[in-house]
Amino acid sequence: MKLGAQKEKWEESMWMSWLLVFVPIAVALEFFASHQYLLIFVASSLAILPLAGWMGHATEQLADRMGEGVGGLLNATFGNAAELIIAFVALHAGLHQVVEASIIGSVVGNMLLVLGAAMLAGGIRYPEQRFNPLGARSQATMLMLAAVALILPAAFQEAEGATAAMVHRLSVSFCVVLLLIYALYLMFSLVTHPGQFRSSATTENDAPAQHEGNAPQPLWRSLTILAAATAGTAWISEIMVGSIEPMVHQFGFSGVFVGAFVVAILGNAAEHATAITAALNNRLDLSFSISLGSSVQVALFVAPVLILASHFVGQAPMDLAFRPDLVLIVVMSGLVTAQVAGDGRSDWFKGVQLLVVYFAMALTFFFLPA
Amino acid sequence: MKLGAQKEKWEESMWMSWLLVFVPIAVALEFFASHQYLLIFVASSLAILPLAGWMGHATEQLADRMGEGVGGLLNATFGNAAELIIAFVALHAGLHQVVEASIIGSVVGNMLLVLGAAMLAGGIRYPEQRFNPLGARSQATMLMLAAVALILPAAFQEAEGATAAMVHRLSVSFCVVLLLIYALYLMFSLVTHPGQFRSSATTENDAPAQHEGNAPQPLWRSLTILAAATAGTAWISEIMVGSIEPMVHQFGFSGVFVGAFVVAILGNAAEHATAITAALNNRLDLSFSISLGSSVQVALFVAPVLILASHFVGQAPMDLAFRPDLVLIVVMSGLVTAQVAGDGRSDWFKGVQLLVVYFAMALTFFFLPA
Amino acid sequence: MKLGAQKEKWEESMWMSWLLVFVPIAVALEFFASHQYLLIFVASSLAILPLAGWMGHATEQLADRMGEGVGGLLNATFGNAAELIIAFVALHAGLHQVVEASIIGSVVGNMLLVLGAAMLAGGIRYPEQRFNPLGARSQATMLMLAAVALILPAAFQEAEGATAAMVHRLSVSFCVVLLLIYALYLMFSLVTHPGQFRSSATTENDAPAQHEGNAPQPLWRSLTILAAATAGTAWISEIMVGSIEPMVHQFGFSGVFVGAFVVAILGNAAEHATAITAALNNRLDLSFSISLGSSVQVALFVAPVLILASHFVGQAPMDLAFRPDLVLIVVMSGLVTAQVAGDGRSDWFKGVQLLVVYFAMALTFFFLPA
Repeated sequence: MKLGAQKEKWEESMWMSWLLVFVPIAVALEFFASHQYLLIFVASSLAILPLAGWMGHATEQLADRMGEGVGGLLNATFGNAAELIIAFVALHAGLHQVVEASIIGSVVGNMLLVLGAAMLAGGIRYPEQRFNPLGARSQATMLMLAAVALILPAAFQEAEGATAAMVHRLSVSFCVVLLLIYALYLMFSLVTHPGQFRSSATTENDAPAQHEGNAPQPLWRSLTILAAATAGTAWISEIMVGSIEPMVHQFGFSGVFVGAFVVAILGNAAEHATAITAALNNRLDLSFSISLGSSVQVALFVAPVLILASHFVGQAPMDLAFRPDLVLIVVMSGLVTAQVAGDGRSDWFKGVQLLVVYFAMALTFFFLPA
Repeated sequence: MKLGAQKEKWEESMWMSWLLVFVPIAVALEFFASHQYLLIFVASSLAILPLAGWMGHATEQLADRMGEGVGGLLNATFGNAAELIIAFVALHAGLHQVVEASIIGSVVGNMLLVLGAAMLAGGIRYPEQRFNPLGARSQATMLMLAAVALILPAAFQEAEGATAAMVHRLSVSFCVVLLLIYALYLMFSLVTHPGQFRSSATTENDAPAQHEGNAPQPLWRSLTILAAATAGTAWISEIMVGSIEPMVHQFGFSGVFVGAFVVAILGNAAEHATAITAALNNRLDLSFSISLGSSVQVALFVAPVLILASHFVGQAPMDLAFRPDLVLIVVMSGLVTAQVAGDGRSDWFKGVQLLVVYFAMALTFFFLPA
Repeated sequence: MKLGAQKEKWEESMWMSWLLVFVPIAVALEFFASHQYLLIFVASSLAILPLAGWMGHATEQLADRMGEGVGGLLNATFGNAAELIIAFVALHAGLHQVVEASIIGSVVGNMLLVLGAAMLAGGIRYPEQRFNPLGARSQATMLMLAAVALILPAAFQEAEGATAAMVHRLSVSFCVVLLLIYALYLMFSLVTHPGQFRSSATTENDAPAQHEGNAPQPLWRSLTILAAATAGTAWISEIMVGSIEPMVHQFGFSGVFVGAFVVAILGNAAEHATAITAALNNRLDLSFSISLGSSVQVALFVAPVLILASHFVGQAPMDLAFRPDLVLIVVMSGLVTAQVAGDGRSDWFKGVQLLVVYFAMALTFFFLPA
């Protein structure tokens, strides 16, 4: 994710701070109404949103001090910190299926829901919007790589004579390859070809506006906020994750649906808000870099980190060998997004097309037997 | 389908009127040689062609009176009336497999056979032809949506624990979603962004020519023709549909082959003729709007209408959960067409490429055991 | 493959001649150390490289005498002669699985490994390189046709009631269709639209340089070299093919891995060297025509010729009904290559993306149980 993108992203998300009121509510419910799983889930979900916002804001402040190179790296690494924390907690609780589903749901949701909503919102205000197709193409290719990296192990585990140990070795090798290509992608987008990902309009107009708005904050303040928001996210995540399984049982949802279409949306709420605001301000390049950038980050950085970490955290290691239905929706989303984003033009109906694909997928998983 | 497209389409198809001689022949065969299933099938098929042409001509006349908005809607809704009637009759006779196959065959045939033949014909006369890639891209995306809407339920019904009732509920929901997105697509192409689907060349040259050629006809005349042609189509469709199953048994064809590659071609004969003529006149935009427009219409309007209607007509309701092999050919056709149509240029070899894909599919289903 | 491409290709590959020293080494090992299968395999593999180079060089010389039309045809037909000979020998030895895997490995390797390495090499020297996207698009479409021609029979043989005889008939029909479309493709690229496949830069700069460098050789000399190199390739191929199965057993590799990712690379070594050199000289069009041109040639000419020939050579006929995992990697490679090659621009990271997909595939087949 680009520097400018992150900056605007978290400034926009500060309005969420009043949601912090749900932190004590979630804790109180957990204590005094510990069987109201749905209420606990909703309250803790709402409480996580502002914590994630503050965490991002503090990361951004730190990144600003570091200069473009290291700062960009910091953002690219911790830009999805909330998602990472929730997934770690779920991994620790042994909820592999929820983790798997929330990774895929985040990849798919950023491509279809976040980008689709931004294109629709921008398209209602402007008959046609343009964006730099080079960056979008490059990110679409990265998502095709991610699809390949999901398809191959999923196919492998169906092969005759393939043992769990073999799947495991392949999975670990693939995670290392994904982290490597992600590192090269950062080098490409931050060092050798940053121009491909920047729209000229954005860089010219924003630089001064941001310097005015962002008086540099003391280092200790950023670090304190980061520590507090991280700790808070982890704490409330425990409460939320603890409510998932009993809630799923009580209401007969499938765990995959909750992971992919509910939990995943929480982690992307801030991206969602900023991508729409950017599109309304006719800065669709920013919407693209936020939405597709997050998809790429989750697929090629968050996912392999989680899978490698699962060997140290939690009861059993997790493999990069996902359910075929989850692999399928990534492949379809990637193809549709590449088609929609290929020509550098956007209108409201393209947004609707992405949203319909997302909605059709959500509907299918909603009807899926638990 | 655009107004101009429809207009030319049916004018061109008037030469088919002499085929009306097959109406009495089909009826006579049905009476006096009721076991000559192949002959009955061929005669009734040929008889349907001019009836479909007249039905379209009358719809067009009515649409002209209504002004661009309502007229466009009328065309978009009844543009594939012949296909709809044949499918209803087959549905009523309980031939679900034939209906399913003819829907898919029509979607695939318009993309590959009609467009391929037009590109080949145009490419033989002109070394290179250009078309507006915006409309083609938008329609290719719609066909990808259609593919997603076919893949998801087909995958769903393979899921562990998925009951027929669940598949049914998902199918009905998807049909409603498809009709909704089709309505939005009409709004997009007729109201907010009509320019994307019109080539400047076409609109300039045609408007006057059409006004000269089409003296407005009295309303009662159009309505009478429409009623008569519709009644005739339904009547002959009964004869044709009745001959399919015994013919298939007698000759050992698979029903899917007959539905997808024989019945489907009948419904598209008029489109076929006009698309080729347009390409020969170097109006490839019109060929695109006819062929891809019909595919979109069948996939996103005719199919869901038929499926929803199957709850009221026929012995058993039909679901939007098609055979995997039919889903596969839609996906492949969509990808190949998007690739071929993506750059706004056409030559004879692109036409050959589309035709070869169609021919390979037809060959595969021809060899398929009944 | 274009004339200019072939010319440079084989000139560049003459440096390989010193590898001829492995011809006697391979023969000696076969005699005196007939159980050192790995050594025999490596030595005979290295010995084949210069023989293939000389065979191509002589074909090129003959093609030059014939004029552009017949010469282009000669190149297009015998451009992959080494691959064809190795495959024939393997077919004769009954190693159907190795033949199948080496065909797919060659198609995939040319697209991903050869083109990826060229784009990476060129991208390290130049920040951005441009190529004519028309030819690349056309070849990508041909590879999609090849994918369709692999998917349909693979799906067909899974159909209920499909007998081996039916698969066989379908396979033969498909081979004939592929050869037909390949003939039309040659007509398109050599006769009616040669401009689509030629970059203006290439034709201007090269024509004189080539005339200086290539003094026409006597006909008898070219024919003698061709005969000797062909005989040598066939002879050493027997030794190499004979070592595959025992080597595979001894080391526990899967035969598919050896066929697709070892044998296939041998046949493409010359292409590999020339495509990289061309990219380093900022002639990326040539790299594209070599790599994608070879993929197309193997998929649409070499494969059907081998399958049709298998009725006369070898113990049992082979069908165009490949393993689903091999079909899968062709489809994925085609989609990724179409995405990467679609916009006429290249940079180092695009090369890395292609290479990573290739590496991920190789890894998967490496881990596959034998």
